[in-house]
Amino acid sequence: MSDEKLQRGFKKLRELGSKSPAEDLKIFDFVPGFGQALVEYEFCDIYNRPGLDLKARQMVTIAGLTALGYAVNQLHVHVRMALKAGCTKLEIYETMIQMAPFAGFPAVINALKAAKEVIEALEKAS
Amino acid sequence: MSDEKLQRGFKKLRELGSKSPAEDLKIFDFVPGFGQALVEYEFCDIYNRPGLDLKARQMVTIAGLTALGYAVNQLHVHVRMALKAGCTKLEIYETMIQMAPFAGFPAVINALKAAKEVIEALEKAS
Amino acid sequence: MSDEKLQRGFKKLRELGSKSPAEDLKIFDFVPGFGQALVEYEFCDIYNRPGLDLKARQMVTIAGLTALGYAVNQLHVHVRMALKAGCTKLEIYETMIQMAPFAGFPAVINALKAAKEVIEALEKAS
Amino acid sequence: MSDEKLQRGFKKLRELGSKSPAEDLKIFDFVPGFGQALVEYEFCDIYNRPGLDLKARQMVTIAGLTALGYAVNQLHVHVRMALKAGCTKLEIYETMIQMAPFAGFPAVINALKAAKEVIEALEKAS
Amino acid sequence: MSDEKLQRGFKKLRELGSKSPAEDLKIFDFVPGFGQALVEYEFCDIYNRPGLDLKARQMVTIAGLTALGYAVNQLHVHVRMALKAGCTKLEIYETMIQMAPFAGFPAVINALKAAKEVIEALEKAS
Amino acid sequence: MSDEKLQRGFKKLRELGSKSPAEDLKIFDFVPGFGQALVEYEFCDIYNRPGLDLKARQMVTIAGLTALGYAVNQLHVHVRMALKAGCTKLEIYETMIQMAPFAGFPAVINALKAAKEVIEALEKAS
Repeated sequence: MSDEKLQRGFKKLRELGSKSPAEDLKIFDFVPGFGQALVEYEFCDIYNRPGLDLKARQMVTIAGLTALGYAVNQLHVHVRMALKAGCTKLEIYETMIQMAPFAGFPAVINALKAAKEVIEALEKAS
Repeated sequence: MSDEKLQRGFKKLRELGSKSPAEDLKIFDFVPGFGQALVEYEFCDIYNRPGLDLKARQMVTIAGLTALGYAVNQLHVHVRMALKAGCTKLEIYETMIQMAPFAGFPAVINALKAAKEVIEALEKAS
Repeated sequence: MSDEKLQRGFKKLRELGSKSPAEDLKIFDFVPGFGQALVEYEFCDIYNRPGLDLKARQMVTIAGLTALGYAVNQLHVHVRMALKAGCTKLEIYETMIQMAPFAGFPAVINALKAAKEVIEALEKAS
Repeated sequence: MSDEKLQRGFKKLRELGSKSPAEDLKIFDFVPGFGQALVEYEFCDIYNRPGLDLKARQMVTIAGLTALGYAVNQLHVHVRMALKAGCTKLEIYETMIQMAPFAGFPAVINALKAAKEVIEALEKAS
Repeated sequence: MSDEKLQRGFKKLRELGSKSPAEDLKIFDFVPGFGQALVEYEFCDIYNRPGLDLKARQMVTIAGLTALGYAVNQLHVHVRMALKAGCTKLEIYETMIQMAPFAGFPAVINALKAAKEVIEALEKAS
Repeated sequence: MSDEKLQRGFKKLRELGSKSPAEDLKIFDFVPGFGQALVEYEFCDIYNRPGLDLKARQMVTIAGLTALGYAVNQLHVHVRMALKAGCTKLEIYETMIQMAPFAGFPAVINALKAAKEVIEALEKAS
């Protein structure tokens, strides 16, 4: 049943630090069903595939979002999730820097700036 | 001395499977110095940074190249290097699939196709 | 005569909601002739081609701008034009969501956010 | 049940011209489950959303794939599907041309070339 | 009159090496009017703007096409035009290499390969 | 010795207007060694290559950053450097506008806006 996919997606989101995934999805209430499809596909179907643990999935996600160049908002979300999944600050920064030969400095520098903002905000809050 | 950087870059390229890095660079002889700068920067300065081991660097590189969408030639090279660095076939395929929610299916499907070609060629050769 | 192209472009811009296209172009006064070339090419030559009506042109424009990932400013302009050309809110949102399998969630979520801002501002103003 | 999603996705793929969607998915057998996740997400969850009919979804898909610039393989697939969904040749070409002011000529010219190849192959075969 | 724009565009194309621009445009006969709009906009309106001479325009065009990553076909055309406009081989290669810190090695290496193919073909033919 | 590369990079940065390059690099102190690698690679190895003078390198850099679409922050830095290297305002604006047929209006308009901000700030300050 499809609702099972949603619940498995929510479980993954809780592992990644969400206190209340159903609540978080309300930002997509203006496009009914989209948030649910996103969670079922990304956080159930994709994140539960074999071969990579949660930490490794967050590392490669940080890499891909950095390479895109324009995904700064999503880096804010996924850096936070990466820390929750067990990535260290160093691993996150180095993953971004490893992109420099392939995606160029503009993409990397914007990503590093986003990561630093998230990390400093979390350190200040703790 | 700069030549030390080049030698350290060549060492890294050998770890990644190159039999003769100096030989490999000859494809860039028409732009003198470019191959050397590439090796010193990418394979000495970046690849020798702390925080990520060689396998992890290849994983996030595969992720970034997949997200770019147009880097199919470079995926051929880096999938081969990733296998040498200890990545399994499954890890390479899953790293690419993890990009689907972020970079879309066209980028991922082209990357999977490139990886499959490299892997099948290596299996046939062995 | 070239000025005829400009007038036909202005006519199209008025259909898309501009009160005073000549006035709007003044933001490009620092690069003389650029605004005129843009209008003649985009809004006369391209928009007056056969095969797609104005509404369809705005739909596919929204799709393309979403897929680019970095064109958030232009989405603000073209969402407004799309509504004027007869697209419904639902059609605009769904066009963006249809991009998710091809361009990924970061591009789509940033586009949805831009569309929501434009639509809410218009609803508040009316 | 998840299998229901897969069946609904297959139904959509048949509407888009696939004779045997389950057979088509076998190209993804080397990454088990990926083809199924793709069909459930893209062709069930996204394609069955309200607001756009099948033809409109193909039009905006053509637009998005054109704007990406590197999705030539996917344009081959989706141009064929667009024709099946009721798009005319003219509508497909014009959708691509409408992208020129936003994504530039290289992306558009490569897309037009792909569309022409598909359309000529179909006309020769009929 | 619009035809004047077309003639001025053709003149520019001849300066860039085209023997018969009207003939060249026939590849776009399947999308009537598109080739003409392209020439009027790109080679009349843009190329005739002040501030950059023809050689400088070709240099920055090579840079932009390199940075896009997927514009290899267009690089074949514009490298040939750049040579005609007075760019040396060295200037073309160095323009591409200057993109490496900003757009990454995949984009640059694919561009260098395209330039080398064009240049070697011309040298063989002469 | 590697430090020689750093000093040569700093020299180039001073030519491009930096009062104190070592000081500027401190923004990268949270990722030790990255700023140094960037300077050695970009401003020593690449910028000191033959074939293009400093002004030409800045022109093609402006072109590439414009084409990327998302590199607005880097355009702020490099427009300033371009002016220092002898580019005129007109040359910078025209380089950006030359990208329009290849990368589309969204990329160009965002770049023009960034250039205008930098140039007006400098004119106000002088």
